[in-house]
This record gives sequence, structure tokens and C-alpha cells, in this order.
Amino acid sequence: MANYVFGVDVGGTTVKMGLFDLEGNVLEKWEIPTRTENSGEKILPDIAASIQEKLKQKAIAREEVAGVGIGVPGPVEKSGIVHRAVNLGWAELNMKEELSALLDGMRVEGGNDANVAALGEMWKGGGQGHKNLVAVTLGTGVGGGIIINGEIMTGATGAGGEIGHIHVEDNETEACGCGNFGCLEEYASATGITRLANRALKASDKDSVLRRGEVSAKTVFDAVKAGDELAIEVAKQFGEYLGKGLGVIAGIINPEIFVIGGGVSKAGEILFDYIKPSFEKTAFQGSRDAIFALATLGNDAGIYGAARLLL
Amino acid sequence: MANYVFGVDVGGTTVKMGLFDLEGNVLEKWEIPTRTENSGEKILPDIAASIQEKLKQKAIAREEVAGVGIGVPGPVEKSGIVHRAVNLGWAELNMKEELSALLDGMRVEGGNDANVAALGEMWKGGGQGHKNLVAVTLGTGVGGGIIINGEIMTGATGAGGEIGHIHVEDNETEACGCGNFGCLEEYASATGITRLANRALKASDKDSVLRRGEVSAKTVFDAVKAGDELAIEVAKQFGEYLGKGLGVIAGIINPEIFVIGGGVSKAGEILFDYIKPSFEKTAFQGSRDAIFALATLGNDAGIYGAARLLL
Repeated sequence: MANYVFGVDVGGTTVKMGLFDLEGNVLEKWEIPTRTENSGEKILPDIAASIQEKLKQKAIAREEVAGVGIGVPGPVEKSGIVHRAVNLGWAELNMKEELSALLDGMRVEGGNDANVAALGEMWKGGGQGHKNLVAVTLGTGVGGGIIINGEIMTGATGAGGEIGHIHVEDNETEACGCGNFGCLEEYASATGITRLANRALKASDKDSVLRRGEVSAKTVFDAVKAGDELAIEVAKQFGEYLGKGLGVIAGIINPEIFVIGGGVSKAGEILFDYIKPSFEKTAFQGSRDAIFALATLGNDAGIYGAARLLL
Repeated sequence: MANYVFGVDVGGTTVKMGLFDLEGNVLEKWEIPTRTENSGEKILPDIAASIQEKLKQKAIAREEVAGVGIGVPGPVEKSGIVHRAVNLGWAELNMKEELSALLDGMRVEGGNDANVAALGEMWKGGGQGHKNLVAVTLGTGVGGGIIINGEIMTGATGAGGEIGHIHVEDNETEACGCGNFGCLEEYASATGITRLANRALKASDKDSVLRRGEVSAKTVFDAVKAGDELAIEVAKQFGEYLGKGLGVIAGIINPEIFVIGGGVSKAGEILFDYIKPSFEKTAFQGSRDAIFALATLGNDAGIYGAARLLL
């Protein structure tokens, strides 16, 4: 009988791994380096070896393991095929089949890391109790994961939930990393907030604590909390864009809840004060009751969600 | 053994009904009036009576019927609960349970009319062969239906796929019917195109065939085909908004195909020439390969999709 499941979250520099019981309690967490050389050919064998070693170390029999869930940074189809996971060096491979073969046929389920993290937040994080959820990760970029009736919405080619690249500004002159102009990520990521702040500092003569130190998403929201007028202006712009973007998503998806995570979310619930006015102005009334909550699992959302893929 | 299924599409003035075999061939189509008086209390009994009568007339035994699918204009939860179907006079009722009770326990499945029509287009219309589809209906308003892995995406409260009310313009001064400002419907519906045309006629001195006759979505696209410069300007504005809106939807949903229907779609594939430039400029690259196709079932999409709900 199965008593355990592994959750694996593959990042560009480290692979996070967790051993869980079937109720979702994490029994052990550890990391191994992500070896991306030679088109990342070592990544899956390293993961398989680490799992085998953990089984031996804990004296867990193979039959006691329900399987391995794995999240990777890139578009993943339902079949397990990964297309161009740039940060891992992978071109195209079926990670479910390959990892399963390395583990003598053990069951493997996989998904995109942002989608898998969304599933983790639904299961054990800020979205507990909800089955229709949009997770928004405000980090260096803006990532997203959409859960419909408890299942990840993968999309036709694994690119579902790429909410960082929805268009929210017609008059942008700087290109987004993706090549388009006016993507949500250009205003709502940590990088985007810094950009908005630098623009505001340049455009205004107003004094601000931001003129006397580092300008970052963190210092902007620290300044907001201290009542800094210019920082508040920046937060309003950030909230205007993000609220509008989430309003559009609400009209399309009609989720119960938005779970906001990533480094920027460390600012706390004050973010919602800036997001909600434009959300309420732009969201369709039938979808306007969506709840806003903070993510609670931090960097562990990925291993939780990966484990959940098996259950 | 079941050989038949009924598809019912409830509109504000008539109820369209169809008797289908299990392969989706329509054996008979008919209509009854929608009696909306007294909070629409007659609507479901009228439908049940018409089904009973059809069974008698065709000498079909009850056991030969797999069930009844029904689409209604309003938000419908998975459970069958309809919230405020304004055009029918309904406040809140469980139409699956009520119609089933009127048919002595016959199986009933239901959905929102736009969502159900999307399912019809997937099954037997412009979206055949695809399981991840966004249907866009450009009529008096802009309706939408989203199909994920072959199933309707209902949303948390039945308001999923309300794409007519996604925000696409920050500087709109006229309110949409929903109360918000800058909804897609204000530019991409038949009414919206007429509004854009009247604005353009007023703002410009340019001669146009539109100055010498009725201004409507149809006359605009007729004029476009005749090379009328001002009409072409209007079509470009329409396409700019709709392409941008569909680009955002693509980034979120990552569909295989957009199926465009409704009265405006009678203009034909020329629409795509105006939609695609802004779609390609704004859609995330991983979702940019979505196909554009015209809906083919017209007003029958609803009864086809309703029948499909049972299969």
C-alpha cells in the first residue's frame, strides 16, 4: 500500500525535493543542484538518483510510493512533453516518460512550475477550500497558474495561465522580455515596480525617501507604509495595472479566489488596497466577488503542488 | 437502449428544440414561444410538455431517450442553478432538477446558452476536431464560451467566459450596458461597430458610402469590401480592439482555436484580416498559433451543444 509521494520542483539553479505522506504532510525536504550543462541531460538522472537514495536511507519500499510529481520552468503538455525549458537547457522531451523509466516504471506526473505551485497553494496554502483559483506570482517576472475545478488548466500547448504577458497598456515604448509591448509583467513584477518608481522619480521633483537609497519593490512598499507620497503614486500605478489585469482574468475565468505570491507579496495585504479599486472598476459584475488572499507556502508551493499531482 | 437526445435552447422570445440521434444528426427541429410572464414559471413546463408530445408523436419510448440538454441566457452553475436569467424572468432556480421532475426523472443537463453554443460549434461546427476552444459571438452584444479539454468552463458562479466585458480601453467615456467603461462589447459587437462608425463619420470630413444610407455592422463591412476608406478605418479600430481582447484571452487560456460567430461574422473571413494584426502584436508567443475559424451552425449551435451535454 502506498504511504508516500515525492514532490519535485526544478529550478534553474537548484532542484527542491520533498517527501510527503498522502495527507500532504512534508516528512523531509532537501535540495540538489540543477546541472544544466549538455542540454540539461543530467537533471532527470540526478533527480532519480536522489529519490532512490532517499528510499534506501529511509528504508522505504518501492511499493510504498504512490509516485513522483514534478514541476519544471517551461510549457508542459498534459502528456508530459516539455517544450523549450530554456533555463534547464531542454529542447523537447517527455519528462514523465523519461523520469519514470529512470525509476523502473514508477508513476510520474508533471506540470509547469507556476501551475504546479498554484495547485500547492490550493491544497495547503492561501487557496485552501477553493477549487477555482488563479495564483499570481509577483517575482522578477509575473507568473500565473489557473486551477479549474481542482485541476490545472494547461492550455492547448502548455502555455495556459501566462498572465504576466497579457496586454494592459497600449502606449508602452519599452519592450517586455517576451518582445511584446505593454505586458502586465512590465508594471506588476518586482522589476516592473522598480521601473515605475524610477520613471516617477525622473518625472517629478517631489521629495521622496526613494531618492536617498536603493529603489526596489521592497523599498517602494516600505516607503508606502511610511506615507511617502511619491511611493504611493507608484503603488497606485502598480495597482491600477494589476487590478485591471486581474479584472480581465476574472471576466474570463470567473475564479473564486486570487492567491497572490512571489517576492512582491511580502509587502502584505496593503497590496490589495492598491489592486482592488481598479479591479472593481473593470471586472464584470458576475465575477467581481472573487476573494484576494496572500500565498502562504513561499518557495515550497512547488513541491506541495507536485506531490498533489499524484493524489 | 438510448437512441435519442433532446437539445433545447431557451431564448427571450422563442425556445428552439431539436431531436437528435446519438451521433449528433438532427432528426427534427421546432420552436415554441418563451412565455416569460409570471417570472417565467411556464417556461420549463412548456418545454416538458413539448418533449412529451414529441415522444408520443414519434412513438419513441422513454427508455430510448438519453436525456435533455438545455441552454439558457444567464449564469448557470455546474449544479444546474441559474442565477438571475433576466430575459426569462427567472430569479434563482435549479433548472436541471425542475425540468427533470417535470419529465418523471429524465436526465437533464444544462448550461449557459453561450457556453452551450460553444460546445455545439466544437462538436458539429467550426471547431470540429478541437478540444480547447474559445467561441466568440459578435451579435447585439459580445458573448463567449470557453471549452477546456472538451468541457465547458463554467467558472465559480457560472460567469466564466464573459468575454464581452473584458476591459480593452482606458479612455472610454460612454458606459457599457454592464455599467463599466471600455468593455470589448463596446467596440466589437454589431452595436459597437455602428457606434465606432458614427464616431468616425462625425470626426472626419472624408466622403463615405456610409454617409448616404443606414449605418450598421453590415453596411460597414459591405463598404469595407467596396474599398470605402472611412469604413476601412472603422474596421481597423474594430479589429484593433477585438484582436487585443483575443490576444489577452489567448495568453490566459491558450486555446487551439477561436470560433467567431454571431451576426457580425456574416461579413466572413475578411474579419480575420482586421483582427489578426493586433492579435499577433499582443498575444504571448506561446499562444499565438491559435487558429481563427468562422462558426458554421448559426442559430442551431445552441441545440447541438445542448444535445452534446448528454453525451
